[in-house]
Amino acid sequence: MLPVTNPDPTFALTRASHVTMSVTNLERSRDFYRDVVGLVVTEESDHAVYLRGLEEAAHHSLVLERADRAHARRIGLRVRTADDVVAAERFCKAANLQFERLERPHQGPTLQFRDPVGTLVELTSEMDVVPRKMQDYHEYRSGAPQRIDHYQVVTYDVQTATDFWAGLGMRMSEYTAKDDTDELWGTWLECKGNTHDLVFTNGKGPRLHHFAFAVPDATSLIHAADVAGALGFGDEIDRGPGRHGISNALFLYLRDPDQHRVELFNTHYQFMDLETPPIRWDVTDPRRAQLWGMPASRRWFFEASEFPGEEVQEPTLHATPATLEDYLGIH
Amino acid sequence: MLPVTNPDPTFALTRASHVTMSVTNLERSRDFYRDVVGLVVTEESDHAVYLRGLEEAAHHSLVLERADRAHARRIGLRVRTADDVVAAERFCKAANLQFERLERPHQGPTLQFRDPVGTLVELTSEMDVVPRKMQDYHEYRSGAPQRIDHYQVVTYDVQTATDFWAGLGMRMSEYTAKDDTDELWGTWLECKGNTHDLVFTNGKGPRLHHFAFAVPDATSLIHAADVAGALGFGDEIDRGPGRHGISNALFLYLRDPDQHRVELFNTHYQFMDLETPPIRWDVTDPRRAQLWGMPASRRWFFEASEFPGEEVQEPTLHATPATLEDYLGIH
Amino acid sequence: MLPVTNPDPTFALTRASHVTMSVTNLERSRDFYRDVVGLVVTEESDHAVYLRGLEEAAHHSLVLERADRAHARRIGLRVRTADDVVAAERFCKAANLQFERLERPHQGPTLQFRDPVGTLVELTSEMDVVPRKMQDYHEYRSGAPQRIDHYQVVTYDVQTATDFWAGLGMRMSEYTAKDDTDELWGTWLECKGNTHDLVFTNGKGPRLHHFAFAVPDATSLIHAADVAGALGFGDEIDRGPGRHGISNALFLYLRDPDQHRVELFNTHYQFMDLETPPIRWDVTDPRRAQLWGMPASRRWFFEASEFPGEEVQEPTLHATPATLEDYLGIH
Amino acid sequence: MLPVTNPDPTFALTRASHVTMSVTNLERSRDFYRDVVGLVVTEESDHAVYLRGLEEAAHHSLVLERADRAHARRIGLRVRTADDVVAAERFCKAANLQFERLERPHQGPTLQFRDPVGTLVELTSEMDVVPRKMQDYHEYRSGAPQRIDHYQVVTYDVQTATDFWAGLGMRMSEYTAKDDTDELWGTWLECKGNTHDLVFTNGKGPRLHHFAFAVPDATSLIHAADVAGALGFGDEIDRGPGRHGISNALFLYLRDPDQHRVELFNTHYQFMDLETPPIRWDVTDPRRAQLWGMPASRRWFFEASEFPGEEVQEPTLHATPATLEDYLGIH
Repeated sequence: MLPVTNPDPTFALTRASHVTMSVTNLERSRDFYRDVVGLVVTEESDHAVYLRGLEEAAHHSLVLERADRAHARRIGLRVRTADDVVAAERFCKAANLQFERLERPHQGPTLQFRDPVGTLVELTSEMDVVPRKMQDYHEYRSGAPQRIDHYQVVTYDVQTATDFWAGLGMRMSEYTAKDDTDELWGTWLECKGNTHDLVFTNGKGPRLHHFAFAVPDATSLIHAADVAGALGFGDEIDRGPGRHGISNALFLYLRDPDQHRVELFNTHYQFMDLETPPIRWDVTDPRRAQLWGMPASRRWFFEASEFPGEEVQEPTLHATPATLEDYLGIH
Repeated sequence: MLPVTNPDPTFALTRASHVTMSVTNLERSRDFYRDVVGLVVTEESDHAVYLRGLEEAAHHSLVLERADRAHARRIGLRVRTADDVVAAERFCKAANLQFERLERPHQGPTLQFRDPVGTLVELTSEMDVVPRKMQDYHEYRSGAPQRIDHYQVVTYDVQTATDFWAGLGMRMSEYTAKDDTDELWGTWLECKGNTHDLVFTNGKGPRLHHFAFAVPDATSLIHAADVAGALGFGDEIDRGPGRHGISNALFLYLRDPDQHRVELFNTHYQFMDLETPPIRWDVTDPRRAQLWGMPASRRWFFEASEFPGEEVQEPTLHATPATLEDYLGIH
Repeated sequence: MLPVTNPDPTFALTRASHVTMSVTNLERSRDFYRDVVGLVVTEESDHAVYLRGLEEAAHHSLVLERADRAHARRIGLRVRTADDVVAAERFCKAANLQFERLERPHQGPTLQFRDPVGTLVELTSEMDVVPRKMQDYHEYRSGAPQRIDHYQVVTYDVQTATDFWAGLGMRMSEYTAKDDTDELWGTWLECKGNTHDLVFTNGKGPRLHHFAFAVPDATSLIHAADVAGALGFGDEIDRGPGRHGISNALFLYLRDPDQHRVELFNTHYQFMDLETPPIRWDVTDPRRAQLWGMPASRRWFFEASEFPGEEVQEPTLHATPATLEDYLGIH
Repeated sequence: MLPVTNPDPTFALTRASHVTMSVTNLERSRDFYRDVVGLVVTEESDHAVYLRGLEEAAHHSLVLERADRAHARRIGLRVRTADDVVAAERFCKAANLQFERLERPHQGPTLQFRDPVGTLVELTSEMDVVPRKMQDYHEYRSGAPQRIDHYQVVTYDVQTATDFWAGLGMRMSEYTAKDDTDELWGTWLECKGNTHDLVFTNGKGPRLHHFAFAVPDATSLIHAADVAGALGFGDEIDRGPGRHGISNALFLYLRDPDQHRVELFNTHYQFMDLETPPIRWDVTDPRRAQLWGMPASRRWFFEASEFPGEEVQEPTLHATPATLEDYLGIH
């Protein structure tokens, strides 16, 4: 069933903005994101490293926290104003969700909650401003990632997740469904004006499949692969380069030292005008997954980062194993 | 004086969307925009040709109209809903501007008006939907422009223009000013979440300096220059390739057969968070104009397309000729 | 055992130059090489289509011939002068090989022979000159292949093949060997001054694994993949994009409608100075095959085009199946 | 008059290989070539810095020597064997030129001589072998120059210079001439199999106009310009980016701290087959100089590095000042 977007025009989610991952070896993970991915280190301590993309003026878009076990701690989004944080709080209360107001270093008013499918989320309206580095071209490394772009979450109930986020103002740009139904298998949701800020796909969840940074072009993406190869991470590419049919993204997926997955990607399209309908893909259409590209690895399909304190559940939509392999394009 | 943005949060300008140019040889101009620039022809008649970028689902982003004299007919922007067109109409009335509601082919409710500095503008909330062509890679030509991005207008009064558009909800991302004052010499205004949808620069106006299409990457931009060279338009590059300090755009400017100017460009950055202040450049700082690049031609500085029925006026801010050349970086 | 190059300095092989393939549907194959690969059609008849890369001044670098069965007809190389054709003839006679002098349309004096491992080869010293198209940028399609570059032949006896071609003046730039021996498993041989014109790898042979065209850059290579996807050939990529350790090539392999394989590639390095030793890779080193990249398909490893009238033989070097998979990096 | 190439097929010039420049501030120049251009430092002392391109296995392709005055010390080329050095020595003697055999660090047998138009040249057959760095992708900087490519020398007598080098085995790929004559104004000479290793153009000479390094693609070239801009060398681009008609090179010219000029460029084409005639351009054809590109600066046309101990002479071919500007495309 297709979701209905944003009952409250005065509430404004604006973009995916910051993700927090716990890691078991902080130095190794920092080196990975700085040297192999190309992010900029804003600040570091014994306990945490804050990183950002080259063009970002916000203090952090990736936070690594030292821990005994690797987890996806939470995904963060921005709202326009402090009033929007208050409105989101009301929304969570009405929806009977767990939530709390928090103080986070370098952030303005912050609300943390679990969405109805267990995704741990944080909203804030403000962050410390730091210098944009995009014109420091001599400091570009590897893929030269410019900014955080989106998250993909594996969930046991795509419909419920989608309805919730549409209620918070996200709009669906593309989706996968089965046969002639509108049974949702995957949904691409956006608030920043292009194809996606948040993606839900059907599977055991909640788990964070990946977070993504935008790189300038195909050449940067290939250079990131070359640098990964040169630094001994060539085997940690678990999919790509290839071109998704959905969203038209040129993609490269890398696994970090804790096997968290980061996507480097390029070229999604503008999605702003209200008269433009979402694009529907049948879940059996292989071009959905890729216009071209070698088959993804099994681990790309089946591995993802768990959120702490949340039981992973079996999906409500089931495929027979044979069909599944078929859907996945695993050969 | 810095402008104050958007007193009315319920009114939503969303993006630069369509520009109409009158041309003296319709076929020649169509060939130029299709073959040299790489736009897609959506529809054509004896009187007009409608074109769009490869990823655009909206019917047109460039309209060429046959005429005896070449003009910039009007620049077009999108608002979110039909209610926003009504709100804009009220705003024009309150501001005592000329305006009219119009029927335009392939567009929803449309409002045309002259802003306080004489720029002819059209707002609409809807357009006919046509297929996005971004995955028809075999049809990519030249620069493979994906979508319209912004306009630059030369105006005799940057402050007045800026205040008006800030009142309509535009936000200033960067600006040029002189010495220690905030006397505005140029303003970069945005509504779509990156550096600019509408730029005003000081000079004889109102005149349309250029409209811009976004190309995928540096390679596309160089390929467009190569195609221009191959098709005999090598001399019609009047600036670039180079890198603007302001907005960090990699740019190439081309003159069409009527000497209208189109920019192909790449890589502006996200500008969404309200805590991020606009970047100030002193008008005497040459890096403002370009981090690198050969000097622009004189015609790039002094030629632009007039709007029909509007007297061009001398600017309110004056520079001595010597200073001017200095500001402009003409050697 | 490492080969000894070129006892006769007055004989000059200069480059890989033209390959002839028989195909079962001439029109379909022409369309593939013109539209999906991006080659230029020089000439066509009912029986044959002659194609070339954009920068080539020689009449043809790929000849497609209509036939009932698809074969690799022969691979062609250039020698500097007509005297070199005569010298090669003497060389073949001395080596007791099958050879014949032929008239070929658009070619100068031509010698055809089978090398000691059964590869069908043709040498010529001259070809009709046609216009280089590299500055017709408006006619660039897909990967914009500039010129033919090299061949890879699967052979049952790499040592014998390598010794023969070293005797004809080829020089080895890189090779694979096993453990501490110099038992040759693969050899990269060159005459044009960079890494390879002719490659031999161990396996059932003689079979032509692929012929390769050089594309300008990574962006062209990705664009070729995109065009292949758009035109329905996305599944005909059987390896890549990825980066070979050997020769440092960025590669993409495509299968044509008869399942002949063409490589688009970029960036091999200059190899001219005599003091530079060949690079040795152990056959068990996975970086040899790729610094990064998803696993190649099984068909990339096991399928290749047979030469007409030549029995395919089992290789002299054997690997156990398990080891083989290991060598191949098939997961 | 067109030159006749290579009377002695056993003598083999192979490529442009190493250039020595004297500089007034060794550290500053090293920083420029390492950080702005992207070369690798092989070795340095108080007196000299040795650099090379990323893919080069030869010890040095650029030598900077500390001196009181900036000069082009000499341009270096490679010959295949030590016998070729001996043959070159005989050739110089026969031609009645100044020459001497020298010991140079890290080089094999070395011959230095002045060609008939005063160009200081050094030939060697061997150099110390160092590791190729092309697969150390994490160390790529700026333009990621891969290898030295060619030299351009301004000479007072293009015909004499060309005849001499043709006699040493260079072949002319392209040339400029005036009207219907074959009066040579500029000649592009090669020995490595593509368009040029050594270029002579008409003017006050002998002076070294520039030496050139090959970069991987257009993106690298733009990135080099961006890095130059970021490091304060944006004004030291004295021409480009643009596309030469001659040789089809995409070019960017930079001035080093002593105003020596280095070109970063891409995409010349293969030139090997003897039947291919050189391309003739009329000196009045502006496409000769560039298919597209902003006008070169005056200093690009009139400034170049002098060789020590050699008087600069007026050219034998004269153009009236007006014509000259016209030829040069200075607007």
